This record gives sequence, C-alpha cells and structure tokens, in this order.
Amino acid sequence: MIDRILDPSLESSKVILKGVEDKVCVNLEKQAYAVYLLGQEYMCDVSMYSKVLIITNKTIAPLYLESLQANLKAKEVYECIIEDGEEFKTWESVSAILDSAFCYKLDRKSLMIALGGGVISDLVGFASGIYQRGIDFINFPTTLLAQVDASVGGKCGINNAFGKNLVGLFHQPVAVCLWMDFLSSLPRREYQAGIAEIIKIAACLDAEFFHRLEELDLNNPEALTPCILKSIELKARVVVQDEKEKNLRALLNYGHTFAHVIELLGNYRQYLHGEAVAIGMRMANALGRKLGITSLEASQRVERLLEKNGLNFDYRIDCVQEFCRHFFTDKKTEFGNLRVVLVSQIGSAGIFSHIGEEQVMEVLKEWL
Amino acid sequence: MIDRILDPSLESSKVILKGVEDKVCVNLEKQAYAVYLLGQEYMCDVSMYSKVLIITNKTIAPLYLESLQANLKAKEVYECIIEDGEEFKTWESVSAILDSAFCYKLDRKSLMIALGGGVISDLVGFASGIYQRGIDFINFPTTLLAQVDASVGGKCGINNAFGKNLVGLFHQPVAVCLWMDFLSSLPRREYQAGIAEIIKIAACLDAEFFHRLEELDLNNPEALTPCILKSIELKARVVVQDEKEKNLRALLNYGHTFAHVIELLGNYRQYLHGEAVAIGMRMANALGRKLGITSLEASQRVERLLEKNGLNFDYRIDCVQEFCRHFFTDKKTEFGNLRVVLVSQIGSAGIFSHIGEEQVMEVLKEWL
Repeated sequence: MIDRILDPSLESSKVILKGVEDKVCVNLEKQAYAVYLLGQEYMCDVSMYSKVLIITNKTIAPLYLESLQANLKAKEVYECIIEDGEEFKTWESVSAILDSAFCYKLDRKSLMIALGGGVISDLVGFASGIYQRGIDFINFPTTLLAQVDASVGGKCGINNAFGKNLVGLFHQPVAVCLWMDFLSSLPRREYQAGIAEIIKIAACLDAEFFHRLEELDLNNPEALTPCILKSIELKARVVVQDEKEKNLRALLNYGHTFAHVIELLGNYRQYLHGEAVAIGMRMANALGRKLGITSLEASQRVERLLEKNGLNFDYRIDCVQEFCRHFFTDKKTEFGNLRVVLVSQIGSAGIFSHIGEEQVMEVLKEWL
Repeated sequence: MIDRILDPSLESSKVILKGVEDKVCVNLEKQAYAVYLLGQEYMCDVSMYSKVLIITNKTIAPLYLESLQANLKAKEVYECIIEDGEEFKTWESVSAILDSAFCYKLDRKSLMIALGGGVISDLVGFASGIYQRGIDFINFPTTLLAQVDASVGGKCGINNAFGKNLVGLFHQPVAVCLWMDFLSSLPRREYQAGIAEIIKIAACLDAEFFHRLEELDLNNPEALTPCILKSIELKARVVVQDEKEKNLRALLNYGHTFAHVIELLGNYRQYLHGEAVAIGMRMANALGRKLGITSLEASQRVERLLEKNGLNFDYRIDCVQEFCRHFFTDKKTEFGNLRVVLVSQIGSAGIFSHIGEEQVMEVLKEWL
C-alpha cells in the first residue's frame, strides 16, 4: 500500500544526506521536499549554505547538539539555545532567534536548523520564514509528536494572549530528518502524546492502518518506525492536495478544536498537545455520537486504542460556559460558524458546521 | 506602448470596485491582482468579507478615514490607528494591529485595509500575512511613493535594531486602489520623494519613459497620473517575472543599497525613503562612473532630472568607514559579496558584484 514517490527534482536540493534508510516525499507545487529516515550513522552535508544556525532548547542541547554537529558538513555553524516549553512559543523567542541570526550575520543563502520538538520547529519555521523575508530551514524533530505532526505541512505558529498558533505562516522546510535515536531519551508522556497523533491520523484517514495499530505494540521501536512513516505519508497526501487548509486539510483537525481549548485553559502546561488531542478526540466522538454522525463502533475502537496506549485521561471541565466560549472563538471559525471534524466510521472523517452551542454544552457536561 | 493585460480571472475577486478609470494587472502565478485607478467617485464593495479592519495613522485618519468608510460597502468595519512615521515600522506596531484584529475577532475570511503610505502598507501586509497564518488585505496608498513603490511587489518588511526591512515576508494584496485625491494633501517633500522613485524606475528600465519625464512638468497632476501608472506597469512586469527577487527584481534596487545606509544613519528621520534613494542614485552613478560602467550622459541626465524635481540634496557623510560597514552588511549581501545595481545607459541597468570596499570608500569620500 505504500507508494512513496521518488521525485528526481528533489535531487537538486542544496542538502545532501548520506545514510538515508527510507523517505516520504511531500510534493508541494511550489516546493517539494522529503522526510528522510536516517540510519544510526548519517551525514548531513549543507556546505552549499553560507552559514548555518542550529536552534535548539536547553533540554535537547546537552543531549544531541554535539552529535548533530558531528554529523553536519557545513561552512560555518552557530547555535541558538532557547528555553524549553510550550509557554515559550511566543514572539519573544522568535525575536531571540532573529537577533541571533543578525548577530552571526546570516544572509539570504544561510540556513536555519530546528533541533527539537514541535515548539522549536514552529519557532524556527516562523523565524526563518521572516528573516530577510525568508530563508531555508531543515527540521530535525526530536519528539515523536513533532516527527509525525509538525514535520509535514509547513504550519508555523506562535501563541499569544488570545490563544494558540494564532499568529504564524506557512513555510515549508527544505528537508525533515528523522533520527530514531532521539526517541530513546523521550519521556514516557511525550512518547504517548505522539502515539495519540498517529491514532488521530489513522482514525480520520485509513481504516487498514488503524487496524494495524490495534494489533501492534507501539512501545516497540521496530513496530513504531513504519507507523511513523505511514502517518507522515498519510498527512503528506492530504497536505499536498490542500496546502493552505481550504478544505481537505481541515480533516486533520479531528479532536483539535477541543484540544486547543484544553491546552489554553491549562495554560499550555497541564497537558501536552498530543494528550489534549487524545481528550479532544473523545469529546469529538461524544459530540458525533450525540449528532448521530459517529458510529458506536468507531467511538469504542478509538477509545480502546487510546486506553491501550495509556491515553485515557480523567479530564475535568471547571466551567462549561467558559470552555464553550473559547471553543467558538477558535480560528477555524468562519463567519461565526464553527467547523468541527467528526469521524463517522474508522478511516472516514468529515467537516461539520452549524453545530449549536447548546449541543456542545450538553456533551461537555459529561466532563464536569 | 502600454499593454495592460485584462485578466478575466481577476473578475472572480472578492472585491468589487465601481468607478475604476484604469488598471494595471499584476499577474503573479499564485495570486493575480490589479492596481486600480479610481475616479473621484468610487465604491469599494467588500461585503463578501466577514469583517473589515482599516489600519491607518494619526495623520491620515482625520483627513481620509471618513471618506474611505463612506465609499466602502462592508458588513462590519473596524479601525486601528497607529503612530505616523518610519520609526514606527516595527514589531510593536505589527503587534498592535494583530491585537486589534483579535479584539474585533477577525476570522480567516476577514479583510485588512491599509490606508496610508509605505509604512502602513508594509505593516498591514506583514500583519495580515501572519494573522491566523494569512488573511487578505487591500492597499489604499496615500503617498506618491507608496503608490509607485509599495503598491506592487508584496514585499512587507519591518525595521529593527539591525537595519531596515530586515524582517518580513512576501504577501500580495488582493487589490491596490489609487485615489488621486490623496495626493492633494501630500507635503511637497513627500511628493518629490515619490518622483524620485519614478525617476529610478525609468532610469533602470525604460529610456523612452525617462525621456518623457524630462519633458513633463510632474507637478501637474494631469501629467503625473499616467506616469504613476507607467511606473507601476514597469515594476509589475519585473515583479511578475521574479517575485522572490532571485535576480531580475534586484534591478529595482538602483540607489537602494546606498539609500538604506543613509536612512539608517539618519535614524529614519532625516530623509524620506525617496529622498534617500535620490541621493543613493547619485552615489551609485559616481561608483558606476569610477568603475567605467555608467556613461557620462546617463549620469548627467539622472542628475539633471533629479535637480529639476527638487531632489538635489546636499548630503554629507560623517564617517566613510562607518557608512561602508553598514553598506557591506546590507541584506543584498550574499556570501559576503555585495551586489550593487548600476545604470550603464538610461533605461538599462545591471547587477554588479565583487566590488571592492576601497573603490566604494574612494567614491564616498566625495560626500565627506
């Protein structure tokens, strides 16, 4: 079933990788790039760039910065280390990256490399997208969630007082490099949060893949790696068809509209993004059940698969009215009309609008 | 000679204009839009957008905000008024615009309108480009410079401690509306600064147009209007061929590399952008003369045309070394190699690199 397209035009890239074991191509109209699965030993040659700035955080730097630098062939390499955490996905961090780039005099033929989780890849995608009106960047996602989610799509957003990812742009990396050794140091919670994202993609898009996830032990890296690539491939297929999220891409927001509120109310600290998505999928299913859209079987199978992977959280809503207010001001709202993604059967999702506030409130009461 | 292409695809735009007297189409691959010359009486129907946020400054607001609102057909209109001046082309102003958009709950189907000079159009282009990862904007340039320069190309940049326009992106407006009444209140200096930009475009790209400028009295609005459209058309042709400034578009930077330094050293207050470009063109000509690239005739004719239009400034450089240092760190530098645009003959310019610092210093000494 895997049909990864090997696009010869990618060979003209300014990035030369050695030790690649597999790849998934993201054939966007304006810029094609690939997600590469690197073997234990690899070499990333970016010597065609004038300068390279690696951006990472205080947690990742001591673990992997040296190893990345050792596997990098480049003219001049600089580093910029920022604080770790979703609460630092702000303009201040983007500004710190830009200042660093100006201090090291990066020019338009320079490169930024993101070494970290989703926060780092968002910050670097944004910063590189506006530095001198846009320079190239490579993404080395170090968390499972970032590997399956942030690695494809080019969405780069920052949070502000009004919510999550409300300011940002679309900026595609020139390459995404998956190095599985990063996952060996990943805390259990972050590992599971990544699995939630894989479950989400399967539930929305591919019944066969979902079934495979039910059979596998995802704690086993050998079983997990092909699932990561499969998730990326599924997401890439959607993104290629709908880069700017006019329609199809919105399908990937299953559980997300709820998750954004959960994260906001928890100050982006209580739950990891993937954990919030796991809770959000259950809320979406409850809403879908109430509206007669989601089948009982789909709802139960998602529930069971989440539980099997340690993703059954005892989430409690303090105030349904407050939750609802944030829910209906999500940026997926158009003309005040919220669009929610609901799964009807496993592998099949749709976008539903004109959903009444009362119905959502009714459903949310289960979480009081 | 005028071959304005009337593209039927533009008719599908979400903006419906009445009272259009002429237009120049900018047929960019991803997004085609037009610059419209509006008659005295016009109507701008943007009722297909959920909400409209007009961004203007404290100088323009009392003069034209009411008149624009009266000619606008829209569902909900809000306004955001910021300080006037190049020194406010900063992240703080972009952030103020974003906050305003969040407060009024603009969604992805909302519109921003820039009503002002180049600073406003840059700020609004940037803010609308990153608000919820990009929404539409319309540009109503109120200065001559903004009409001929900032109206085409989609470059949106802000200044920071490191220099001018160093952070930004490419974001094309859905329409640019020229209303000549704006120019009636324009201070003489700003009017002349705009003429400098027209002279620049003619000198680089079109000998016949340059000759026409030599014959005309540009203080006469009836003579000026066709020249504005011709400038826009010439710039649009270059931009369409080279949207991201890989090569050809750089030709429009004649005088700019010098001008950026002049503006930076004057704290963006001493000279208007167009004035700095006028000085920059003379510096570029002096360099071109020294290198044997610029003909004596071209140099003299540019000089005379600038003088005729009140653009002969007695600029003095305090410290040639300092000027040079900024000059060679301009963002047009690649691999430490500055690229400078020089005019060889009137209507014909080229990009020259590998220019020695000593030669530039030698030339700049004339301005000590």
